[in-house]
Amino acid sequence: MNSVSTAQRSLGATFHNSKAEVVVWSPLSVTVEICLVKNAKCLPLTENEYGYWSLTTDELQPGDLYRFLLNGETERPDPASLSQPEGVHGASQALDLSNFKWTDHQWKNLPLEEYVMYELHTGTFTPEGTFAAIEAKLDYLKQLGVNAIEIMPVAQFPGSRNWGYDGVYPFAVQNSYGGARGLQQLVNACHQKGIAVVLDVVYNHMGPEGNYFSNYGPYFTDKYNTPWGQAINFDDAWCDGVRRYFIENALMWFRDFHIDALRMDAVHAIKDFSPTHILREIKQHVDQLMIETSRPHYLIVELDLNDTRFINPLDQQGYGMDAQWIDEFHHALRVTATGEQSGYYSDFTGIAHLAKTYRDAYVYDGQYSPHRNKRFGIKAEANPGKQFVVFTQNHDQVGNRMMGDRLGQLVSFEMQKLVAGAMLVSPYLPMLFMGEEYNEPNPFQYFVSHTDPELAEAVRKGRKKEFAHFHLEGEAPDPTAEETFQQSKLQWERVNQEPHATLFRYYQTLISLRKQHPALRHLNRQHLKVNVDEANKTLVL
Amino acid sequence: MNSVSTAQRSLGATFHNSKAEVVVWSPLSVTVEICLVKNAKCLPLTENEYGYWSLTTDELQPGDLYRFLLNGETERPDPASLSQPEGVHGASQALDLSNFKWTDHQWKNLPLEEYVMYELHTGTFTPEGTFAAIEAKLDYLKQLGVNAIEIMPVAQFPGSRNWGYDGVYPFAVQNSYGGARGLQQLVNACHQKGIAVVLDVVYNHMGPEGNYFSNYGPYFTDKYNTPWGQAINFDDAWCDGVRRYFIENALMWFRDFHIDALRMDAVHAIKDFSPTHILREIKQHVDQLMIETSRPHYLIVELDLNDTRFINPLDQQGYGMDAQWIDEFHHALRVTATGEQSGYYSDFTGIAHLAKTYRDAYVYDGQYSPHRNKRFGIKAEANPGKQFVVFTQNHDQVGNRMMGDRLGQLVSFEMQKLVAGAMLVSPYLPMLFMGEEYNEPNPFQYFVSHTDPELAEAVRKGRKKEFAHFHLEGEAPDPTAEETFQQSKLQWERVNQEPHATLFRYYQTLISLRKQHPALRHLNRQHLKVNVDEANKTLVL
Repeated sequence: MNSVSTAQRSLGATFHNSKAEVVVWSPLSVTVEICLVKNAKCLPLTENEYGYWSLTTDELQPGDLYRFLLNGETERPDPASLSQPEGVHGASQALDLSNFKWTDHQWKNLPLEEYVMYELHTGTFTPEGTFAAIEAKLDYLKQLGVNAIEIMPVAQFPGSRNWGYDGVYPFAVQNSYGGARGLQQLVNACHQKGIAVVLDVVYNHMGPEGNYFSNYGPYFTDKYNTPWGQAINFDDAWCDGVRRYFIENALMWFRDFHIDALRMDAVHAIKDFSPTHILREIKQHVDQLMIETSRPHYLIVELDLNDTRFINPLDQQGYGMDAQWIDEFHHALRVTATGEQSGYYSDFTGIAHLAKTYRDAYVYDGQYSPHRNKRFGIKAEANPGKQFVVFTQNHDQVGNRMMGDRLGQLVSFEMQKLVAGAMLVSPYLPMLFMGEEYNEPNPFQYFVSHTDPELAEAVRKGRKKEFAHFHLEGEAPDPTAEETFQQSKLQWERVNQEPHATLFRYYQTLISLRKQHPALRHLNRQHLKVNVDEANKTLVL
Repeated sequence: MNSVSTAQRSLGATFHNSKAEVVVWSPLSVTVEICLVKNAKCLPLTENEYGYWSLTTDELQPGDLYRFLLNGETERPDPASLSQPEGVHGASQALDLSNFKWTDHQWKNLPLEEYVMYELHTGTFTPEGTFAAIEAKLDYLKQLGVNAIEIMPVAQFPGSRNWGYDGVYPFAVQNSYGGARGLQQLVNACHQKGIAVVLDVVYNHMGPEGNYFSNYGPYFTDKYNTPWGQAINFDDAWCDGVRRYFIENALMWFRDFHIDALRMDAVHAIKDFSPTHILREIKQHVDQLMIETSRPHYLIVELDLNDTRFINPLDQQGYGMDAQWIDEFHHALRVTATGEQSGYYSDFTGIAHLAKTYRDAYVYDGQYSPHRNKRFGIKAEANPGKQFVVFTQNHDQVGNRMMGDRLGQLVSFEMQKLVAGAMLVSPYLPMLFMGEEYNEPNPFQYFVSHTDPELAEAVRKGRKKEFAHFHLEGEAPDPTAEETFQQSKLQWERVNQEPHATLFRYYQTLISLRKQHPALRHLNRQHLKVNVDEANKTLVL
């Protein structure tokens, strides 16, 4: 029980020959039972090695609701639940993931260097806010020319409005989006249209509401402090069970949902001093899975460290990640376009830094960063362009502004075209944020729907406090208000109106050019010459 | 000011052409002055880049006492003080380290694989407790056959009785031991007798009393929690100044004190996620220094992680440490000899684990450790025997027992000989703990002489609490009592009494055999065959 099988998920409830195999990790519990909602019956699990408990039974069937009863007194949902039809506090629902009829056998993941990504948030991308509604927009995306959608996190979160970073059931797909079946259906549809699917997953923290992990075991450690409090326990006592949980999670998306790439959130906040970093161990398992499935699967990380150890190959003692986000490209471009100098933008000078990021990927590769008050980064000379994801805006840079303004609200129409060009001719992997292609005027604001009133109030206050420092004008919208969510939705009618339609055609043309022109298609930084004229603010590639 | 020169120390007070150059790092101070005790005069320092302040003056002369005055209100000793003649709270004393007349030009550091080390504590090794008194024992050590002494930490600590791990002036040599000049003199004498000097240094925490670092700058960070509270800031904002401080410290011992090797305390407690780990950066600088001095200098680490990343070469992305302690050899040997099973000994089975550590260095190289409650370690197949330091006891295993009993008090005379043999025929670097060679009956107990009464009381209580778990019998000696220190001193008259004299000759013979016999001299683990018979408790090498 202490090593991971790539062939199947072991945690939670799985079905084989019409019997359920139930496994839960709870190393400090004295007794563990599974309680079925349909007949109010509790069945005892048997303790195995390393804190795992298990039961084989024919009393639990797909669709059934259940909870675990710990030590005869604490009843909780399954931490590896696949479905939470009644939300984060409700019972878990057993699912058989293997009974979806996939029809994507012809699909072959694209080479990573061909990815043109489109980040979207399921809840606000369409009026309906569901996976099914995304499916109806796939032809639009094909028309635009992107070939990969990146879906913001879908792990079950409290309520129905959330960016996704407050998820507390990493194996359960948000019920209000359409659940596991809805996601399988969407991926299948994408593949039939030649679109790859990148899924954003969060392995650096858990949301605050519905977080019952500590009832089960030492999922957290006091060794490290993070912006979200206690760190997830990747290297302290009992970490094996936690590591296995996340490795199985990564494998599940690839194997059972046919996801093409994972985008792992803020991996700099994963604290792990083990000889084998958890990302490296995930990569080792994904490599093994790829041998078994013969499908390529990519691991992309959001990383606020200019540290090639994360993206170097396993045989060079790296963690083997296929690519990382480079926010510094965004910052340099943004400062060039807008001249902003507040917060982290103060580290960026504009066009000279933009030139540097075209050449070197990292702007800071050993220099002193005034904003960070330390030298930052190392050189990424040996890492090819396809290892870096760039954007002119993403959910964070838009949504973390007080008013959630998109770049299009801040710069002229011509400047929007210029920055889009800067991204799409770069020797890196471009990623659009939903709506930027037609300059959606609606903001993308920060919203939550916590049901715990104290927590909701804390989020409201925290948001206000955050903007006391960064922006001084106006009042931040209430993140807990339904209206804040509603006004962050795309207005699809705009696409056919001017000047939106013109911008859309411009993006279409640029993407098409990028795909066709060899100089743009081949992400070879070594063959790129960058000439910069700071005085005239000109940059020639 | 943001890069380190290997040629000379820059921090604190240095002398060039009879002028003093004074440099202190205090990035958040508004004004910094140096105040001379002799004339009560304060001279302003000028602020340079990166938070450094400096002054060139002929008013400060070697031997003068001084303090820094921060923001016109806080007067503190120099964090890079070379001398604290009035203790940890007193004024700093400027020294010119370059005016010692070295006569060790013939000395060439021994190859690391030839080291036979002898760990000693300056305060208790001799009745006088000074460097000068150690010098008088060097012939004894030559006679025994060891060729390297390892001196427990000498950085200025509170009072005159301390193991050394409460030091708060990493650049100042404990005044009661004989200060900087005394240490230079001792190293010079050792070299003339063909003895190498290993110095124990502490880069993972600072002692609690006389710790004025936070007055100067962000030496600590809240990012990590350690057994000693806040971690030293090696990777958070402002870490450059802290990193430089420790790099300069390591270089000083080699360059200005002719130290042959550093033993760095508990480096697993150094928390550093930078792209370049601080140990790797120290190694890079020491490599540079060795080119300049043409002397080899070794870096040895105490490491409670079976992780070869620390000892792998720089070009394999390791930290480049020359060797590490393996406590697991000790634990396996100890359990074989005594059958102890309390605390961390519970992870060890005895002779089968002893056989494994002869073969593989690490006992745990990926297996589940019941005591740690997780899988632990990786394989060290590619690391030669000279990268591992072994012992039958050291200050920790002796002194961290409640009564400070040495192994000789716990096992028979014949068993003492057996374990000494087990160590001295191993393909690793052996290290004796002072007195074990003649079975010193006095204990080595835990002692401190904090002058802060609250702190002294906290240490007393902490010590009691510690032994509530590990040992249940008797009462722990009072660590703050002078008597506890006195009864931990070696009794030199024993050496010539029986059965001590017999054991001494046994050690002598074994060490001599090890040096002469090619099978023992060559630390090639690949050529070692280990046969173990668990039933008969026999192990054949």
